This record gives sequence, structure tokens and C-alpha cells, in this order.
Amino acid sequence: LRISQFGGEPAVIDLISRICDGQGRDDLVLGIGDDAALVQVPGDDLLIITTDLLIEGTHFRRDIIDPYSLGWKSVAANISDIAAMAGTPTYTFSSFALDDVEVDFVENLYQGMTDCAKKYGSRIVGGDTNISQGSQVINITQLGTAPAGQAILRSGAQPGDRLLVTWTLGDSRLGLELLLKFGLEKATDINICAVDAHLRPEPRIAEAKAAAATGKLHAMMDISDGLAADLPKMCAASGVGAIVDTLSRAISPIVRGGASGVGIDPTVLAVQGGEEYELLMAVPENAVDSVIKTVADATGTQVTAIGRITAERDVLIEGTDGSRTPLRGGWTHFEKQQ
Amino acid sequence: LRISQFGGEPAVIDLISRICDGQGRDDLVLGIGDDAALVQVPGDDLLIITTDLLIEGTHFRRDIIDPYSLGWKSVAANISDIAAMAGTPTYTFSSFALDDVEVDFVENLYQGMTDCAKKYGSRIVGGDTNISQGSQVINITQLGTAPAGQAILRSGAQPGDRLLVTWTLGDSRLGLELLLKFGLEKATDINICAVDAHLRPEPRIAEAKAAAATGKLHAMMDISDGLAADLPKMCAASGVGAIVDTLSRAISPIVRGGASGVGIDPTVLAVQGGEEYELLMAVPENAVDSVIKTVADATGTQVTAIGRITAERDVLIEGTDGSRTPLRGGWTHFEKQQ
Repeated sequence: LRISQFGGEPAVIDLISRICDGQGRDDLVLGIGDDAALVQVPGDDLLIITTDLLIEGTHFRRDIIDPYSLGWKSVAANISDIAAMAGTPTYTFSSFALDDVEVDFVENLYQGMTDCAKKYGSRIVGGDTNISQGSQVINITQLGTAPAGQAILRSGAQPGDRLLVTWTLGDSRLGLELLLKFGLEKATDINICAVDAHLRPEPRIAEAKAAAATGKLHAMMDISDGLAADLPKMCAASGVGAIVDTLSRAISPIVRGGASGVGIDPTVLAVQGGEEYELLMAVPENAVDSVIKTVADATGTQVTAIGRITAERDVLIEGTDGSRTPLRGGWTHFEKQQ
Repeated sequence: LRISQFGGEPAVIDLISRICDGQGRDDLVLGIGDDAALVQVPGDDLLIITTDLLIEGTHFRRDIIDPYSLGWKSVAANISDIAAMAGTPTYTFSSFALDDVEVDFVENLYQGMTDCAKKYGSRIVGGDTNISQGSQVINITQLGTAPAGQAILRSGAQPGDRLLVTWTLGDSRLGLELLLKFGLEKATDINICAVDAHLRPEPRIAEAKAAAATGKLHAMMDISDGLAADLPKMCAASGVGAIVDTLSRAISPIVRGGASGVGIDPTVLAVQGGEEYELLMAVPENAVDSVIKTVADATGTQVTAIGRITAERDVLIEGTDGSRTPLRGGWTHFEKQQ
């Protein structure tokens, strides 16, 4: 059954509402169905807002992502922006323009969105539904809150700070390369960990809060476009440079083992990745151990030092032979890829 | 100069930031440039959120709308949803996926967005920028506020209520028909009022607040899909029906005069329109005069009674001969148009 045969927009909205319904939040005043949604924001909290537009062909390809994962990942990418500010996700607004897909597709898409939102304490309460003649399009707007003065920006990095990342880098890019080379089914057979890292990323909400609670973070952002694209953004916002000198510590055995299978150097997978959704933090030297231990104790997630912030504005990476070269690559819009 | 030659994503974001910058709001903590935006919401207010996805081919055609109007209208449609709740617009988030257009196009698009946002007290503080291989896509997320208990929903209409609309109906549809038949330039020459109604609608923020301040409104929504599509939504949400019996009062001389030129009956233009962004209100009989006068005194905008709410669930329109037929037509997604 296709959505054009399903009973029109009201039937599709009913279907979505049923999937999205569930464990409520007591600050929701009005959800799906009116001109807009209404929520309460506690008076002492700041509201955090982020929005992402995902276009088929540019951000995803239907042949290498299943609808559930597409829904999950769309929401996860936005919740990750809330994590990047050390915030708490609250509400998710999901809009789509789909061609005349099977109703199943919509159900699985929204189940993925809903499961991801709920896992991180958010709830889908609105959006917009459309049929598109061309590419599929998804837009997520994610709200969150943070107590005033406690949101962590990307602009506070200082020379001498150490650069920390949560978990490991390159797994998502390895997953993507496997998907491109072997397709969804075979890639999953070959390396389900790397494929999962790409298709169902886990935003680092708990890790961000634990790290921020130390009161020691100077700057934080999430790695959504790859280290080589995102570290320069933190540096530009902070008016500093950086040198990445111990990246290998953050490269997992999965990436080391899988790199040859896709013919790409593990370091390239780690710096020119994207959609990692790991956190990049700038922390003063004397607080590094405390941040690492606090995050590990609270979440079990490892945090690894990969470099440091410099006064010179260059963003460099140091090879194993001690040579330094500009850190390049990573995902940017408005430039041709590959 | 095309955006792919303009200096990448940072240059495009800089350009947009310069256009969007201007008269600030003192509750903005952090705007464009970090992972997310941060704003304050006064403790007693509810937050209103609405979001719209606009797809080229489905919602707009580049040959019959100029970039400035496209920007204006995208924001206006969302601010209208805030008006529909009797709220105050605060912040606008604008995302796009464009093909490799001229930088001029982006400038004019954002100037239109910015001018519309500012006119209604909002400010563009975030979004997402992409290059698309296929159709152009714009997503607007609009925030607003309303004091707790003062937002007006669409679900409160009661049998016996009169149905009021702001201004007139059909002008936007007439403008669309002229644009489709004659193209942008010639249609503007023929009837600039109708074309303006379609391309640069004016959301009824002040009218909604004036009407709501009477304390007499039972229900309100904006007419974005045409009266014949939207009145049934208000009736369904309220568990009532309606009869439209004096529609002709809300049909302007512009629509009467222009209808023959596009070969469509004025009544059809008025009920099967869409993108009117006028307000539809359900008001108890004894408050009709007070609402009409209050809105006129505060804004100069006429409000017209066009029908009434009934206990029977049918939504009907009465012809000049007294015959009653179901109110049909109007814009719906998920069904083939025309």
C-alpha cells in the first residue's frame, strides 16, 4: 500500500501520531494536530534550537540505508547538536517530503525517529508532511534546554588546552565506504560495527553533561563533518590553532583492521570522516585526567587526548615521523565531493 | 558568480549572517555560528513552535516567484501559524538546499526572509545550508511565545458560533492563476494586488492579538490550504459542523473583477484558494460586533462574518438560491492536484 492510497494527509498524520505517541513529557501543552505546538520552558533554562535539512543524494542514499536507520540517524544528528552544547534534548519536530513510498516506509522511518528521540529523552511533537516529485527530503528541528551559563560553546578554546574526543574516530567513514562498495546487506555481514556506527550513531548526551559538570571545559562541539573540517571551525571561532599529535590513540581496532578492505589509510578514515557525532573538547591541561575519569565513571565511554590548542592559527597534524602538515579534508557543503 | 565559486560554506554563512543581522532582540543569547542557537523564554510564557518544508515543484515554481518573494512568503507562512495561536513571533530558523544558483539569488532570498521576519518582530538566528542536486528545498522553523492560557486553538468551536475571517478570500488564488497563465511579469502588470496577495502575504499577527484580547474567541486557525480544506479541520478538531452562508461578503472587488480573466468563478477562487494566511475564527454570536470593532480599531483590517458553526457534523456552503452543498476542494497533500 502506497501513501497516496492510504487516505490522504489526515490518515498519514494519524499514523505518525500513533507511532510518535508514548511516554509523555509533562511540559508539553499541545502536540501534533493544531497550527503549532506549545511547550513550557522552565524559567531558569535557556532554550537550545538546532535544525538540519537532509536531502536524498546529498546526505543519504536509499539503497544503502534502511528507513528505520534513516529516521534514527536524522534525529541523532540533531540531538548531537544539543549534546555539543551540553544540553538536554526535549522536543523533536520532524518534516518530510517523500515520493509515493509504501506506508511501511513511513512507519519504519518514524519508528526510527521515535526510538532515537525517546532514548535521549526527547519526544516528536510536530512537523510537516508532503509528497515530493523529486528527491526525498527530511528536516529535523530539535529543541533542548540548558541552565543559563552552562551551555558549552565552540568559541572558548585557549592555547595550551588539550583536545579530547569521545570514543573513536573513523568508524562511521569505514561503514560508509563498506556500504558504498558492497551494498547494505553485504557490508553489514562484513563489519556490522562500522556499518552501525554509520547508520545508527549514538549522540553523546550523557558524556557531554558529565564532561561539562566538571566545570573545566573551555570549548566543545560535535564532529559531524569530520575532524579535519570541524577542528578548524573550533579554532576559527576561538581565534586559535591546533596540532593533532596523538590521533592514533583514537583509532579503533575496527578501523585499523577494516581500512585495507576499503583501500583507505586508517588516519584518513579518522580525519576525513564525518557523521561521527563524537564530541571534540578543549580542556586545560590540568583538568584532562579529571574530565576523562568523570566521563568514564558516568558513562563507560572512553575519552582520548589527540592534540592541543596553539596560539599560532594553523591547524596541523603530526605524522609518526614528527613531520607536520595542514589538516585537510572532511565534509563541506558547496564544494564538489571526491 | 555562483555559490560554488563563492568561497565555500563559511562564505555563504557569512553572507547570510550579514543580511540577517540587524535590530537585535535582548533575549537572544547565541545566534548563527555555533552548533545550535540559545534563547531565553520568559518564565510565564509558553513556547510556540511551527515548521514548514517547501519543495520546488510542489510548493513553488521558480519561474513564477522571484527570490525575494520566495524568502518573504516562506517566513510569512510560518509566522501565520504563530498568528493562528494568537502568539508573538520571536525567532526564525531558515534552512535551504539550493542548486548552484547565483549568489544574488541567496542574497535576495534572505533579504525577503529577513524583511518579513523583522516586520513581525522576529529575527533569523540559525539554520542549515546545503547544495542540492535536485529540487530546491526551503525549511522554516518559527518560534513564538504566548502567555500561558492565552493561545487560541482550533478545537474550541461551539454550535451557534459565528465564523469570521480577516480581510478577503480568493485574492491569493487569483494571483496564482494569473501567474500560471501569464507568467510573473505580465501577471504583475495585469493585477499587482492579486499577485502581491499570492507572493507576499501578510500574516495577521496584530489582528490575531486584537481579536484574542477580547477574550471571546472560541477557536482560531489560519487559512493556508483554502477555506474548503481548513474549515473542515477546525470542525473535525472541535467535533462540530459548519455552514458558510454569507461568503460573498468576504470576496473582494479584485476577485470579482479578475475572476473572468482566469475563467474561474469568484466563489471557487474564495473557497478553493490556499496560501491566504487570513484568520478563521469561531466567535459566540454576542461577541461578533465586539471582535470586528476591536480588530478594525487596532489594525484597520476588516473582519467579516461568513457563516456559523452547527451541531451537525457536515460542512456545507449555501448558494444564493438557498441550496446547500458540501464544501469541497482546497489544497491537500498526498492527493493528486487538478
